[in-house]
Amino acid sequence: MSALFEGYEAAPFKARRDRLSKRLDGALALVPAGGTSSRNFLAQAYPYRASSHFLYLVGLPLIDGMLVVDGDEHTLFLPKAPDDDALWHGAQPGHQEIAERTGCRVVHINRLADALGGQRVATVPAPDPITRARQSALLGREVTPGRFDEADLPLVDGLIALRSVHDEAAIGGLRRAAAVTTAAHLAAMSVTRPGMREADVRAAFDGIVVAENLEYAYGPIVTVHGEVLHNSAHGNRIDKGDLLLADVGAEAEGGWAGDVTRTWPVSGKFSTTQREFYEVVLAAEEASIEAVKPGARYRDVHLASCRALAAGLVDLGVLTGDPAELVADGVHALFFPHGVGHLLGLDVHDMEDLGDRAGYAPGRKRAEQFGLSYLRLDRDLEVGMAVTIEPGLYQVPAILEAPRFRELAKGRVNWERLRDFADVRGIRIEDDVLVTDAGREVLTAEIPKTIDALEAIVGSRA
Amino acid sequence: MSALFEGYEAAPFKARRDRLSKRLDGALALVPAGGTSSRNFLAQAYPYRASSHFLYLVGLPLIDGMLVVDGDEHTLFLPKAPDDDALWHGAQPGHQEIAERTGCRVVHINRLADALGGQRVATVPAPDPITRARQSALLGREVTPGRFDEADLPLVDGLIALRSVHDEAAIGGLRRAAAVTTAAHLAAMSVTRPGMREADVRAAFDGIVVAENLEYAYGPIVTVHGEVLHNSAHGNRIDKGDLLLADVGAEAEGGWAGDVTRTWPVSGKFSTTQREFYEVVLAAEEASIEAVKPGARYRDVHLASCRALAAGLVDLGVLTGDPAELVADGVHALFFPHGVGHLLGLDVHDMEDLGDRAGYAPGRKRAEQFGLSYLRLDRDLEVGMAVTIEPGLYQVPAILEAPRFRELAKGRVNWERLRDFADVRGIRIEDDVLVTDAGREVLTAEIPKTIDALEAIVGSRA
Repeated sequence: MSALFEGYEAAPFKARRDRLSKRLDGALALVPAGGTSSRNFLAQAYPYRASSHFLYLVGLPLIDGMLVVDGDEHTLFLPKAPDDDALWHGAQPGHQEIAERTGCRVVHINRLADALGGQRVATVPAPDPITRARQSALLGREVTPGRFDEADLPLVDGLIALRSVHDEAAIGGLRRAAAVTTAAHLAAMSVTRPGMREADVRAAFDGIVVAENLEYAYGPIVTVHGEVLHNSAHGNRIDKGDLLLADVGAEAEGGWAGDVTRTWPVSGKFSTTQREFYEVVLAAEEASIEAVKPGARYRDVHLASCRALAAGLVDLGVLTGDPAELVADGVHALFFPHGVGHLLGLDVHDMEDLGDRAGYAPGRKRAEQFGLSYLRLDRDLEVGMAVTIEPGLYQVPAILEAPRFRELAKGRVNWERLRDFADVRGIRIEDDVLVTDAGREVLTAEIPKTIDALEAIVGSRA
Repeated sequence: MSALFEGYEAAPFKARRDRLSKRLDGALALVPAGGTSSRNFLAQAYPYRASSHFLYLVGLPLIDGMLVVDGDEHTLFLPKAPDDDALWHGAQPGHQEIAERTGCRVVHINRLADALGGQRVATVPAPDPITRARQSALLGREVTPGRFDEADLPLVDGLIALRSVHDEAAIGGLRRAAAVTTAAHLAAMSVTRPGMREADVRAAFDGIVVAENLEYAYGPIVTVHGEVLHNSAHGNRIDKGDLLLADVGAEAEGGWAGDVTRTWPVSGKFSTTQREFYEVVLAAEEASIEAVKPGARYRDVHLASCRALAAGLVDLGVLTGDPAELVADGVHALFFPHGVGHLLGLDVHDMEDLGDRAGYAPGRKRAEQFGLSYLRLDRDLEVGMAVTIEPGLYQVPAILEAPRFRELAKGRVNWERLRDFADVRGIRIEDDVLVTDAGREVLTAEIPKTIDALEAIVGSRA
């Protein structure tokens, strides 16, 4: 009855471990699954999510387990289920069954310290602090998120190399996440009606994602205040003149993320000003998607959106000047402060736990300029990488009213003209894009995004 | 735009702090809100839930905040929002606004260590290990869940005294949780159809709870394998002959929990054997609810269910012997291994973080007998306490096939007769009950539980 092995196949995970072991430079790799996190008291845990590194290499959410890769020998160190576990949680697969299904040796975790003794060990920090404390104790050095010991680098760099270029099983996971995300956005668009609350639309997403027996890849954003970039509240009424911004992605079985944003009019009709801003964002998104291809530098993909946004705002009379110069000076960033996207994989911001070592190619560093400084990715794209493309236009009071940005604008923002667009607080359009030999494949292409398509579907439920 | 103060009133929280301060015996109380917990990487946190103690005394989920109660002086030590917070999260209320709204002093958290210096401080552990490490560092002693320093006891016992007897605001919160829980169960019953998956019914619960902009009070159980007591998977198909067990409760604004279980036939019709077992559980639940009144000992409320279950199983020919003797010997526990309920409040198992010090009256201890040993509550009931009543009947293979329980049964289980009930794997019926002057009020009484009412509603959606 255990659902643990449903849909599980051992081969892709063994292949990944084999590829990883060749990159370890003789070190042992210690990869923790991580433990549960309490919500309000110990027995009330949040839904368990294993570390993405562990899921990548093992494929099973084995709470408190640790994988050790030692050349050809792959060992899972696991706790035993407590005696009364079958009473409360039903019969669970035992160590022997896990060994047979995974092809790993399985050893009780109380033997891990001995197994590591005196060896050179590389590790990556678990998501939860209790497991990190265990890692620190095992290795006799502090294991902290975002900081790596020299000894960890072969594992860190091996994981980055493997996880940034997706294998077939990974692409299958991303397609599944995209498919459920697509169905969920369609459902949300079709239920939208003026007078609802944001939470009602959020519930329509759940109607698909939860019924598929999945979780979200990240906290859903469903808001009429799209200008608040990380807005997780859903309490506002949605009214006739509002645009609703929904940044929602399902997490497929095995942990693969979808990450999609759409922005649609609550009434089913864009106003003229909403339409004008929307077309600018859509043109920017298409420009960046077109720029995705093997060999392209992701910062250039970002800049393609910046230029299109600047050009569009010049055409609308909101900005004045040469679009290229506006982008060079960062003026576009007053309206588009964030990066155009990031790696996508088992994490929605894939391998963000490994910091810019994952997102930035060796020798490249984050810019200091406002806007560009938030770009999470600057690698040359390769076939098999997956990225998001998600430009936006926002009127963020904390930016537009700040003296330092007023200064930056230096007469190049037409504030009076901007006032015409008061009903456009925030727009973002985001798709998931796989780099292919032919250039790219938009995994989420079935989700409506043209004005006509959105106006046709919003509020269409009988 | 911040939703922080929506529906917030300062008075009930100030009154609670005032009552608490009288019980502190001159010590300062340090009550942490707790921090966020990462899901897969640092920036991807689970939805934040403040500590119930903090919510009880402050009413606002102030991440990483700490309350200090020092006689009449109530101070919130809070971090400042980072500089770019308004960009990502919108304008947040500042310290001054929080001070005005709460009536507390607000001080930057980096001054907390000085404020505590040299004082006698009582604390309770935060739900998350990072905050607990901070508490340990502040107090120079280990702050660990489930273990209390002598110095903490005035605070621990004060919180138990206050939180176990609900004030008007608390009862309002419990009523709201019960109302949403009621609507959600009605929705789930009415969508149930053979051929669905458990996840489809779970999604119907979300359709209400999420649309109300609430979270669940605990991980929902929606399963055709009710005999797995803590079953959080939702992947099974639900078929014509199955009983579906749903243990699902909403968490109201402010953190108040609902906790309700219903069991209904997927087809809309109980089989004869399902009906027979169901009536036994319902009679047990009613017996325990009747036993709830001021002055009643909760263990006796539990035993009322045990006796009714034993008597019912004797009538059905599954058990033989005198019901009172069967209960005394713990034979009923083969089919009803858990306790009949627990305190209900801001935690679904209220104050479980404080252990049996909260659930058991001074001088009372958990029994060692299987069954009774799982009883979470053994206090004398008082007006204003809220408890769950949740007897069940289960056929748990790990129990029924275990030699030690076979031995316990000593010919008093008719295994052949039991085989007739193979289509009844697990039944539980659970309501939320407030102790009143008149005896009791069932807060969740509107959720159908008679066989006729369930058969009328299941699958009734047009």
